[in-house]
Amino acid sequence: MQTVSVNLGPRSYSIQIIAHETLGWLTFLKSALGHTRKLFFVSDTHTTTLMQKLRDLSLGAYECNHAIIPAGESSKSMAQFSFLLDELAEFGADRQTGVVAVGGGVIGDLAGFAAAAYNRGLPFIQVPTTLLAMVDSSVGGKVGINHPKGKNLIGAFHQPKAVWIDIGSLVTLPEREYLSGLAEVVKYGVIQDPQFFEFLEQNTAKILKRDAAILRQIVARCCRLKADVVEKDEREETGLRMILNYGHTFAHAFETVSGYGHWLHGEAVAAGMVYASRLAEKKDLIPASITERQIKLLSEFRLPVKAESGWKIPDLIEVMKRDKKAQAGRLRFILPVKLGEVRALDDVTEQQVAEVLAP
Amino acid sequence: MQTVSVNLGPRSYSIQIIAHETLGWLTFLKSALGHTRKLFFVSDTHTTTLMQKLRDLSLGAYECNHAIIPAGESSKSMAQFSFLLDELAEFGADRQTGVVAVGGGVIGDLAGFAAAAYNRGLPFIQVPTTLLAMVDSSVGGKVGINHPKGKNLIGAFHQPKAVWIDIGSLVTLPEREYLSGLAEVVKYGVIQDPQFFEFLEQNTAKILKRDAAILRQIVARCCRLKADVVEKDEREETGLRMILNYGHTFAHAFETVSGYGHWLHGEAVAAGMVYASRLAEKKDLIPASITERQIKLLSEFRLPVKAESGWKIPDLIEVMKRDKKAQAGRLRFILPVKLGEVRALDDVTEQQVAEVLAP
Repeated sequence: MQTVSVNLGPRSYSIQIIAHETLGWLTFLKSALGHTRKLFFVSDTHTTTLMQKLRDLSLGAYECNHAIIPAGESSKSMAQFSFLLDELAEFGADRQTGVVAVGGGVIGDLAGFAAAAYNRGLPFIQVPTTLLAMVDSSVGGKVGINHPKGKNLIGAFHQPKAVWIDIGSLVTLPEREYLSGLAEVVKYGVIQDPQFFEFLEQNTAKILKRDAAILRQIVARCCRLKADVVEKDEREETGLRMILNYGHTFAHAFETVSGYGHWLHGEAVAAGMVYASRLAEKKDLIPASITERQIKLLSEFRLPVKAESGWKIPDLIEVMKRDKKAQAGRLRFILPVKLGEVRALDDVTEQQVAEVLAP
Repeated sequence: MQTVSVNLGPRSYSIQIIAHETLGWLTFLKSALGHTRKLFFVSDTHTTTLMQKLRDLSLGAYECNHAIIPAGESSKSMAQFSFLLDELAEFGADRQTGVVAVGGGVIGDLAGFAAAAYNRGLPFIQVPTTLLAMVDSSVGGKVGINHPKGKNLIGAFHQPKAVWIDIGSLVTLPEREYLSGLAEVVKYGVIQDPQFFEFLEQNTAKILKRDAAILRQIVARCCRLKADVVEKDEREETGLRMILNYGHTFAHAFETVSGYGHWLHGEAVAAGMVYASRLAEKKDLIPASITERQIKLLSEFRLPVKAESGWKIPDLIEVMKRDKKAQAGRLRFILPVKLGEVRALDDVTEQQVAEVLAP
């Protein structure tokens, strides 16, 4: 068992990384939740089996109930948020009731937002089952839902009480989902850790084979890197946390213009990072070689590295201007200044964005 | 102009208490909001005129938009929350967009929750127009909506950037609403300040006449008393903030069982305080005289001091068990131990509650 500690004062918590184990589950729950008497599990239609297994393990110590949400990004909706709140109320959830999210980023974000809003905040446990959720969305406390006008437009900061990551869940993950998660893994190398980027370059074959030892190393390293950022800027106030959005301004635009679900989030991030890197070249921040290394690595992971030809550039830019990172309507991008370091820039013009997007 | 400072570290803010003035409005906004370019006003159908006046004053410095919500407790709903988020998205609100709530507690709670959730938190200004909102709901950062299963069941902690209280708004407030606000005023005397309780007893005539000088004193004192509590327990974590819920476990049960809107919130709190005080007598914490003084003062303010005869005791108790203050299903009450001091007790039995509620 490996543990990553996220140090946030009274909201500190730990991430347990295990492989194919459930033995420590009850001990883990008790140490995370204290006096909780009731647990409310949330899964999607793909993670029902694991959820039921964890629920059955919990039944001796807790009164349990659950909700199963349709799989897919479209479940990050006001309707499902409202549904979960109704179910919690029906269950008679009180302030100590724990919410356990078993699934990918959609389930973590949705169940986390319901946990944040019910009684102004219920204790919350993340059990991420996708690579993307393990290395990104389950760490850091951002929860929320989508709005037709923008991804993650509605939400809260609500830190989990603990995160339980079983690498074993990755064995059955569909290939496209697994590869999508690798985009965020690559991102950490570019924004924070050049050695880690090299490590990925040197281990592509093992990574594609989902070698368990490599995966544990990767997941632990990504969680640590993300925790380092979140600890310094929990609520995205100082600006530091923005570095995690490398590639995301483009990615959110791709996802919004094409309709959520056309590309997986990681796929959009992969192409988004390439365009952000091209912008950095255009602003003479980096040599082309840094973009080329990203393209090579992302391509080996069979991830898209350019936008689809049908998307209209003005539409993409319009979405970017509405992005949460936009300050008073001005575009803001996270751009690499070298491998392992990025910076927020808001002097990027629409013209420059249009140029890098032009085919 | 009078100012009450709420000291919450990075979330500190000040409450400006003025009478029939709007001169300082723009200065107030600029100091509270900094770089904000856009303002989104929310009012209800009763406060539209004041909202429009403040919006017109703001137009020189800000791009403004607004939403008008039907007056009444039933607007604290998922439907209106969702509507405000749609309107904010339509307005193209970014992270700096300020939300200005002009109205009573319903508008402050609803608009505040939309401000908390949109982009995970927009800067928020409270302009309370009812006595209840001035002395209670606009101070302390609790925002939210109701659920059919419980009042304020869904929400967040989201501190305003500043509060603008114009005592002048109280002149046109309907009598029943005004009296309802006095219930929370009396509450502060019972829970924190025996001198203030005596001050109220000695000035009932002036208070009923809405004497402006008295009202400024009362509003400033209540804001200060509430701020003292909120500063020590911002997110209801240490238990101290619970003292503000004196009378509220009963009150929420009355409101839920009778359907929101039958009694005004303050009316429910008035009767709720009397029952809580009776419980304290039953547990030998206080002499009957302390309850009698509350009954006398509340009656002079023409507030109800007992439940309506049609409400069923088991139904009321069922709601109380689902109350946010209930710990793991155990009833918890805030009970006076003397005038000016209360304590949280969770050894109250259902039997004792039923006995004080029995006609």
